[in-house]
Order: sequence, then C-alpha cells, then structure tokens
Amino acid sequence: MAQSWLYVGIVSGLLSVGVAVYLYFWVMRQDAGSEKAQQVAGWIREGAASYLKRLYSALTLVAVVLGLVIAIVFSFNMTQIGSSHVDFNPANGVQMALVFVFGAVCSAIAGYMGMTVAVQANVRSAVAVSEHLNKGFKVAFFAGSVMGLAMVGLAVIGMSVIYLLTGDAEVVLGFSFGASTLALLAKAGGGIYTKTADIAADLVGKVEVGIPEDDPRNPAVVADNVGDNVGDVAGMGADIFDSYVASTVAAMLLGAAMGGEIGQKYTVFPLILCILGIFASLIGIQFVRVGKNGKPGDALNFGTVFTCIIFGVMIAVLVITGGYDMSAFWAALVGLITGVVIGFTTEFFTSEDFKPVKETAKVSNSGAAITIITGFSYGLLSILPSIIGIVIAMLIAYNVAEASGVISGIYGIGVAAVGMLAISGMIVSADAYGPIVDNARGIAEMAGMEHDVIEKADVLDSAGNTAKAITKGFSISAAALTVLALFAAYAEVIEARGIELNISLRSPLVVAGVLLGAMTPPIFSALTMLSVTHNAFDMIEEIRRQFRENPDILAGKDLPDYKKCVSLAAEGALSSLILPAFLAVGLPLLVGFILGPDALGGFLGGAIFTGVIFALFMANAGGLWDNSKKYIETGQFGGVGSEAHKAGVVGDTVGDPFKDTAGPSLNTLITVMSLVSSLFAPIIAIFHMF
Amino acid sequence: MAQSWLYVGIVSGLLSVGVAVYLYFWVMRQDAGSEKAQQVAGWIREGAASYLKRLYSALTLVAVVLGLVIAIVFSFNMTQIGSSHVDFNPANGVQMALVFVFGAVCSAIAGYMGMTVAVQANVRSAVAVSEHLNKGFKVAFFAGSVMGLAMVGLAVIGMSVIYLLTGDAEVVLGFSFGASTLALLAKAGGGIYTKTADIAADLVGKVEVGIPEDDPRNPAVVADNVGDNVGDVAGMGADIFDSYVASTVAAMLLGAAMGGEIGQKYTVFPLILCILGIFASLIGIQFVRVGKNGKPGDALNFGTVFTCIIFGVMIAVLVITGGYDMSAFWAALVGLITGVVIGFTTEFFTSEDFKPVKETAKVSNSGAAITIITGFSYGLLSILPSIIGIVIAMLIAYNVAEASGVISGIYGIGVAAVGMLAISGMIVSADAYGPIVDNARGIAEMAGMEHDVIEKADVLDSAGNTAKAITKGFSISAAALTVLALFAAYAEVIEARGIELNISLRSPLVVAGVLLGAMTPPIFSALTMLSVTHNAFDMIEEIRRQFRENPDILAGKDLPDYKKCVSLAAEGALSSLILPAFLAVGLPLLVGFILGPDALGGFLGGAIFTGVIFALFMANAGGLWDNSKKYIETGQFGGVGSEAHKAGVVGDTVGDPFKDTAGPSLNTLITVMSLVSSLFAPIIAIFHMF
Repeated sequence: MAQSWLYVGIVSGLLSVGVAVYLYFWVMRQDAGSEKAQQVAGWIREGAASYLKRLYSALTLVAVVLGLVIAIVFSFNMTQIGSSHVDFNPANGVQMALVFVFGAVCSAIAGYMGMTVAVQANVRSAVAVSEHLNKGFKVAFFAGSVMGLAMVGLAVIGMSVIYLLTGDAEVVLGFSFGASTLALLAKAGGGIYTKTADIAADLVGKVEVGIPEDDPRNPAVVADNVGDNVGDVAGMGADIFDSYVASTVAAMLLGAAMGGEIGQKYTVFPLILCILGIFASLIGIQFVRVGKNGKPGDALNFGTVFTCIIFGVMIAVLVITGGYDMSAFWAALVGLITGVVIGFTTEFFTSEDFKPVKETAKVSNSGAAITIITGFSYGLLSILPSIIGIVIAMLIAYNVAEASGVISGIYGIGVAAVGMLAISGMIVSADAYGPIVDNARGIAEMAGMEHDVIEKADVLDSAGNTAKAITKGFSISAAALTVLALFAAYAEVIEARGIELNISLRSPLVVAGVLLGAMTPPIFSALTMLSVTHNAFDMIEEIRRQFRENPDILAGKDLPDYKKCVSLAAEGALSSLILPAFLAVGLPLLVGFILGPDALGGFLGGAIFTGVIFALFMANAGGLWDNSKKYIETGQFGGVGSEAHKAGVVGDTVGDPFKDTAGPSLNTLITVMSLVSSLFAPIIAIFHMF
Repeated sequence: MAQSWLYVGIVSGLLSVGVAVYLYFWVMRQDAGSEKAQQVAGWIREGAASYLKRLYSALTLVAVVLGLVIAIVFSFNMTQIGSSHVDFNPANGVQMALVFVFGAVCSAIAGYMGMTVAVQANVRSAVAVSEHLNKGFKVAFFAGSVMGLAMVGLAVIGMSVIYLLTGDAEVVLGFSFGASTLALLAKAGGGIYTKTADIAADLVGKVEVGIPEDDPRNPAVVADNVGDNVGDVAGMGADIFDSYVASTVAAMLLGAAMGGEIGQKYTVFPLILCILGIFASLIGIQFVRVGKNGKPGDALNFGTVFTCIIFGVMIAVLVITGGYDMSAFWAALVGLITGVVIGFTTEFFTSEDFKPVKETAKVSNSGAAITIITGFSYGLLSILPSIIGIVIAMLIAYNVAEASGVISGIYGIGVAAVGMLAISGMIVSADAYGPIVDNARGIAEMAGMEHDVIEKADVLDSAGNTAKAITKGFSISAAALTVLALFAAYAEVIEARGIELNISLRSPLVVAGVLLGAMTPPIFSALTMLSVTHNAFDMIEEIRRQFRENPDILAGKDLPDYKKCVSLAAEGALSSLILPAFLAVGLPLLVGFILGPDALGGFLGGAIFTGVIFALFMANAGGLWDNSKKYIETGQFGGVGSEAHKAGVVGDTVGDPFKDTAGPSLNTLITVMSLVSSLFAPIIAIFHMF
C-alpha cells in the first residue's frame, strides 16, 4: 500500500513537471515583440544567465566540498555507536553524499527553469498586455506556474525515489539538506544582488542625476531588472522548495519515530499530502482567470483560496477512505487555515487600507526619522498576530494528535506544516508572477512602449504586491511550523541512538546554546545588509564613473556599459556569502562538537525563536514602508515631491533590504541549521567536548 | 554570625545615605549663579517637580492596587498546597503587601533625592565651570554620587531589615518586586517623556524655525531639559536600583535553596557583597579627580576601574577570612570582570575611534536610508561580544561553583550577577553625572553665559558620554545575569512546593511559552516608541500654535509658555504607560494561570533571550548613530550642514528612542516579569487551566 503511493508520487511528479514544460513552450510561443523590446529583454536574459552561471559554479564547489565531508563522515556506521566499535562502511557515505547532491541539483533545476521562463516571459507579457490586460496577466501567471509546478514535481519525485530505494526517512534528510543549502545561497545571494542594484540605481539615477526609474541611460538599470529575477524568482522559489521538502521530511521522520506498522503508514502520509497538493494546484491554476472587469489581484487570491478548499476536501477523502486517523486531517487543516489567516493579518500591517500604513504615511510630514521609528514600531507589532497564530496552530495540532491515541502529538505539528506547504505549487505560481510583471513594466519603459501599455503593466504589477502579502504570510508561518517539526526531528534522531536528550532551560549549557542560537539570525541579517550597502557603494562609484567618463550616456546618444554593473553585482553578492554560509553550516557544528547535543538543541531553539521574529518583523516593516511611500504617491500628504514623499522614499529604501534580503533569508537559515544539526546529530552525540 | 552581618548592613546603608545627605548639602552650598541662571534652573526644577508629583501620584495608585492584590493573594498560606486544605492567614498577606510598598518607597526616595540634587546641581555646575573646569566637574560628579549612594544605602537597609525580621528570602522578593515595579514605570515613563520633548523641540526648533539647540525661544526647551532629569537621572537610577536589588534577592534565594547550614551561610553572602561594594564605592568616589591637564572622561573611568580593583581585593579577603569557599570569590570576580570587558567592547561599536561609527558617518554621504541600514546592522552585530561574554561568564561561574562541591552551580551565576552590581554606588555616580552636565550646558546657553563657559561645559558633557558606554555595558550585562539567576530562582520557588517543573524545549507548551515570551520585548519596545512619536506629534502642534499665536516669542520679546509643553509631555508619558505596564505584570500572570507553570518558565526564558538582544541592539545602535552624527560635526565628510550631516541627524533622531526609551526599559521589563512570576509561582503552581 505505502509502496504503491511512492509510485504514484513519481508519476504525479512527472505529470507536474510535464505540465510545467508544456506551459514553458506555450509561453515561448507568444509574441516576443519588437526588435527594441527583444534587445532590452536580451540584456536582462544575458545578465541573469551570467549570474546563474557564476552562482552555480560557486555552488558546485560548495556541493563537492560538503559532499566529500558527508561521504567521509557517513562512512562510519553510526548506528553502532552504542558499542565502542565503529564500523567503516563507505557505501553509506557515498549514498548520503549522492542524495545530498541530488537535492541540490533538483533545487537548482527548478530555479533554473523558473528563471529561464521568467526572463522570456517578461517581454512577452509586456507585448501581450499591449493587446489586452488579461492576456498579459495570463502570460505572466503561466510563466510563474512553470516554476511552481517544476518545483513541487521535482521535490516529490526526489523524495519518492529516495524513500522507495532506501526505505529510510533519515536518508531523505540528506536530500533536504542539499536543497536547503542551495536555497540559502540562492536566496541570500539573490537578495544581496537585487538590493545592491536597486539601491545603487535609485540613489544615482533618481536622486543624483534625476532620471526616472527604469531609464535606459542608467548603467545599473539592467542589473536592477536582473536582480528582480535572481532575487525574487530564483531565490524565492528555492526558499519555498526548501521549506516544502524540509517540512515533508520532518513529518516523515516524526512518523517513522512512532515505530511499527503505524509508523510505516504515517511515514508515507506526508508524501501523499504533497501528491494531493500537486493535483489541487493543477486544478487551482486553471481557475485563475481575470473576468471582463475583474482585477488581477482578486484572481490570484481566488486561485489560492480555491486551491486550499479543493485540497481540504481531498485530505478529508484521503483520511476517510485510506483508514487514517481523523486527527491527521484536523492537523493538516489547522495548518492550512493558519497559513491563510496569517496571510490576511499580514495584510493589515502592510496594506494601505489600514492604520499602520496610513499612520506611517501621515507622520512622514515630520521627516524621515519619524517615518523610520513609526514603521519600525509597527513592524515589531506585526509579529503579534502571527506568533499567536503559530502558537495556537501548534497547540491544536499537537493536542488533537496526542488525544487520538494513534499518532504522536509532535507528528501532528509536522502534518500541520505539510498541510500549509503542500499547495506550494499554487503559492509559488502566484508569487513568481510578481517579479515577471515587474520586469514587464521595466521593459515597456526601457523599450519606449506607449504610455497606455505602461499603465496597464502597472495594474498587473500592483496585483503582484497584493498577492505577495498572503503568500509571504504563508511561507513564513509554514517555515516556522517546519522548523518546529525539524526541531522535534532532531531530538528523535538523537534519541533513536539511545542517547537521552536534555534540553531543559534549567541547564546552563542549554541556556548558553539558546543565547548563541538566538543571536545568530540578527547577526546573519546584519551581515547580509552590510553587504548590500557595501556593494551598492561600489556600484554607485561605477555608475558615477560611467557618467563622468562618457557624457554621451546621459545625453542618450550612447549606451552605458550594463555588463560592468551586472558583473559587479554578481561578484559582490557571491563573495558576500562566505560568512553567512559559515554561520548557517559551521556554527551549529561548532556548538554541537564543543558544547554537545543538549546545547545544540538549545541553539536550534534559540535560532528558531529569534529567526521567526526577525523574519516576520523585517518582511512586514519593509512591506509597510514600501506601501506607505506608494500611498503618499497617490497624492496623500502632498504627493510626489513633497517632504512626506522624501521621507517615504527613505523608509522604502531602508525597507528594501529588510524585506528582500535579510528577512526572507532567515527562513532558509533556520531550516539549514536545523537540517545540518539533525544530519550530524548521530556523530555529535558521541564526539563533543562538554 | 550571619545575623551580625545584617546589622552591619543596616549601619553601612545608613552610612551610605549619610554621605549622600552630606554631599547633597555640599552641592547646595555652591554658588547658584546669576538671577537669570537661577530663573532658568527654576523652570527646570518646577517642571521636574510637577512631573515627579504626577508620576508618584500614579504610582501610589498602582502600589495601592497591587498591594491590595498581594495582601489578598498571600493571605492564603501557600506552603500548605500539598494538601487540598488551604490556610487563610491574613498576617502573611499584609506582611508581603507592606514589603512590596516598602520596596517601591525606597526606590522612589532614591530617585527623588537624585532628581532633587540634579536640578540644583545643574546650574551650580554651570557656574562652577565658569570658574574652573575641575570645579564644574566636581559639583556634577558629587551630585551624581548623591543618588548613587542613597540608592545602594536604601537598598541594603531595606533588604537587611526585612531578612533580619523574617529570615525568609522569599519575602525579600516582595521588596524587589516593589522596587522594580516603580523602576519600570519611572524608566519607561521618563524615557517617553524625555524623547517626546527632545524630538519635538528639535523638529520644530532646529528644522522648521532654524533656532539653535537650547534656545530659550523654543517653548519645548524646558521640557527637553526636564526630560534629561526625569529620563536619565530618575529613570536610570531606578533601573539600576532594581537590578541591584533583584540580583541580590535572586542570589539569596538560590543560596537558601541549598538548604541546611550551608544554605543559611550563603543566603547572607550576597548581602555582604553589597556591603563591601558600598565601601568600595565610597573609597572609589574619593579618587575621582581630574588632574591639572587631565580629562574628565578618564577620571570617571579611572574611578570605575579603581573601585573594581578595591572591591575585588575586598571579596578575596572576605572569602578567605570568612571561611567561604573560594569558588564564590571566582564567581563574583568573573561577574565583575565580564561587566568591565563588555563595557569596553560596547565602546568599540559606539565610539568614534572605531570602524562602526566611522563607516556609518562615511556612508551618510549617500543619504539617510544608508545611514539607517548601516547603523541598524552594526547595532545588530554589536550583540555578538556581549552575548558571548555573558555566555562565558555564566558557564564559568556555574562550573566553578558546581565543581566546588560546596555551593550549587546556579548559585554561582547569582553571585556573578551580584559581583557585577555590588559597585552600583560608583556606577550610578558616574552615570548620573552625564545628564547633570548636559543640563548645565543647556542652562549656560539659555542664561546667555559666555561662549567660553559653554565650551567648557561641552567638554564635561562629552566626558559623560564616554563614561556612559562603560556603565551601560555594565548595566545590561548585569541585568542579563540577574534575570538568568531570577529564572533559576523561579524554578526553585516552584520546586520548593514539591511540584516538578519541566521546562524542556521538547514540550509544545513550553515552546508556546517561549514564543509568547520572546515576542514581548519587541512588542513592548514598539509600544513605547509609538508613544514617543505620538506624543511628540501633539507637542509639535502646541509649539507651532505658540509661535503662530504669539509672534513676540520668536522675536525674543516674550517668553513662551514652557509649562504647557512640560505638562503635555508629562500627561502623554504617564498615559502611555498603561499598556506596557499590563504587558509586564499582566501577561506573565495570564500565561501562568492559563498555560501553567511550565509554559510560564518558557515564557520567562523567551522574554530574557529577546529582551537581552533587543536591549543591547537598541542601546548600541542609538549610541552609534548619536556619535556618528557628532563625528560628522567635527568636520568629517562635509561637517555641519552637509548632506552627510542631514543624514546623520536622521540617524540620531531614530536612535534617540532606541537608546533612551525602548532599549533601557527592557532590562526592567524582564526583571519585573521574572519577579512577578517568582512571586506568584506558588499560586500558579496550583491554579492553572492546562
């Protein structure tokens, strides 16, 4: 029975990838527009390709090194650690290393497909929107779906194949670690890249020289548009890919920990939820349509909610017909509902319809400092509903499952996380739509399309922002539940070795671990943000140099050297990743090998607590500043050019690295730290100083 | 033996208070200057008195209500809870309520004395400095010592008397809770008051109307100077008073928990450390002298370090001659050294001699947004050395004590905290000096003293900032160790009732508690900062109204209505305290009564972790922005009036509520939460929903 579901998993995964490929060719068949438009799109495409090439070269190196370490370490048979005798079994090591690389490769392929279609779809969406708003929408959304469907398809294929071959959920952990390591570098690197280019382009272009956004005379304009793709498409996709896989693996491990026949049955259950999620997403995607006078934003939200409903029904049918305990249904449902609810409360803090954005816009009259203090404060307040939501979801999922007498409470938490993330196919489609239409707008401007087209592209663009609020709430709360499940999985992996794990806060070693863990997310945020300002500085110098040495650029008679800026951004972003990557992978190992498994447990806990808080705070504060600037631009409090607007621009610029660099990388950071800890737990359990 | 130390405690406390009174009269004998200067000082004095009157009225109400609750709750004899029978013993309740009020009153008296002398010393220091720099320094420093010595004296008297009468360290907890409740309201209220006035005065005065700082034409200038006193003198004093008492009580409780003769002996030990600290401070204060060409800042730092050395020698003598275990000496020493070391690392992030401040000043060229991102990032990075320092101190103190076989490891942590705080007499003297010379400078400006005097006052002022870096590092790290000890004390109080406390991170209830606790400090910060901007807004309207309705004010022909602004600031600050106070006292009780003692343990842990991180981050980021603005003002990157300077001013204004409102209140917040939890622990242990 369980076995056959794994085959279904492989088939559904292939189906999902197949649809993605079909949509890819559909997008490619659309009109790519005038020569001018194609030229502009070509620059962006080249820039994106050159970044990906560098990124993947760097990643190959990382994967090889980490793969070798894994191959060596896991050659020592750790299930034997009870005795003083340690077996040497290289087959184990090679298997784990291969699985790790497989995870990284799957994640890379999904990101690559997403990027490739995005940089083709942007110009096609711009051309299509000149025909009709709906057509532009359709091109962008289907292009987004390419990544969404490729991602979930590859993930399910990977997990099914590995579990089919090994029957061991701990091996799937290696797959997840591979995917997450790649995700961390893609997300943080992309985040640094995109904001470096964005800030530099704005500061010199808009502020110093006074040319508009997306003006082709700006040497950084191509880098800025490339940034949207590498940061928001590839980075974000990798981010959800990693939560998706990690939550499934965590739930599988917690299922396996229950042992016996029940354990086997419930180890596969999370994978089945993913399979149902694929079908729900495939159906949901068909229903995303903009009616005659409909709004694109409503269409995206409708698609998400509709997918949730279909998925909810599917789980109910599965649980009833498959002989699973009803508590598993409730746990999954709680996760699903919490994700949506948190998404909507996020909107309260970041939408211009509510007090926080309005108030921040209003106080901007008194200067940038007050804008910052107010937005910062509301950003901090915004964690309240999400944290309470996560706490309630966790307690309900745990208690419902525990009360069943069939599955363990902690497994319930794992299932809640999977319940949230199973519909990632749809979530990613709606999310990847945003940067594509953002790019479409940029190309329309740079290629000198008509004003009317740019206006329609703006409508598509703002719909992307609305959808983002919900999908962002989804992904952060899902990551929170995922890492809570991974945290439990870490304990299970340790105790499966017969070693008692004591992570009581009454132990000073554990408290030491928690304090060190708690400081890691803020330090990580600081490092990535300092990289942004540092790299932006270099790029600002380069832009000024080009304007200075070639006056024809500003006169519009000569093209600037786009490539130079593109490569500056790429080099800067990649070299900035070394320290953050060490924090993510090296620090947990250091803490584990020096202070021991109990302290490492505390460390993970601490990292999760502040990681979730900082991720929520930074994402929401950034969104709030962005939208209060936009609110002022609608003519409130003096509109464009007023003192309030200047202050709003400062807020928006501060918010940029908050919401697009530091904030979203934190999800991945805590996932990677949890995974590396679980993976190395068996070894740390024996070798540690204290 | 132990008994006799308590009498020594009362005598030393009286001595300390006696010296404080002597210094008070010495300060009052100094020349109070011209009529004009006295008039200006009189406005400030009146404003401060009217705020204190309101504050103490509000506090009386709070004390009565909380006192009544305590009287009722503690009338039920909770040591009987093992059986289903609960004794009703009103004497217990009344005793606890009286002790609570006693704590609040002692703290209030110390704050009142500090304020009273500060508002007399400011003008006298300004007059003295016109004679000689050293004389101005002496007046200000001795005035600061009045509060420092009064504070430690009253605290030691209070704790000695209560322990002498009851012999129960848990009753002393009530005294500490009283002191901390007052401290929280004084600190948060003062912090909101001072920044409301500061920001409003600057935004209208400097930015809109273009008059200099401390200009008498500004209606908010008196409120601004009053703010320095209520925020920095009274508030800060109350803050250290509460850490001082709380750390001593926590160590006493942990000592008592060891039981038997050892327990009795070591319950009094922390009090003896306080007594020695008083003597060390009394000696240290005599050695704070500015040499002929010496710098005031060096004199203050020398005083602090010298006091530390004397105190270290004293502990060694005590431990050897008193038959205490050497591990107690090492634990206290570790605390002392860590405090100093953290103080100096704090300087790295906030002094203009090092990279963070220089770099932030440099990037200010590119606008305020980059200033904010850079300062914010360095602020986050600055938590690294402090957290590592706290972790090392905690682990050493614990392991040294545990290895002794005599005292418990957790008691070692308590002693380390007391070791840091025992010299608070000296620390507060150096810290209170700052706002006094800040005021002296303001009075010199407003009273139209000569330029030469203002320059000398500036020298005194900048010395205050240097000293602040160290004392601030001291107080935050001491608070961190204190709350860790209080956290352990909470566990002891619960287990003393025969109830097992399980605060393992593997329990979802505990994790729920930690998440809720972890979000409390950021929410608290947000609420106090929003109060600042909100109240500043009202005051800005009032200032504009005065300028509009009476043009003679700006012309310098008529005086503005200072009182109106003073009372606006006071009302705003006090009414803003309701929600934060609820968070501090109500939320732990809610969590405890609903989710139970385990979750409450997690809650405290979570609050401590993020509380320490946010306190460090906000204090240091604020200091960094302040000093990078000052660095630009020395002529760097274009100096005053340049784009870099404008950006620096924005950073400074954002940093103001960080470092003076939200950041420093967090210490007190987590102390109050820990105390209220420990105090109510016996009741929560029986009555809770889950």
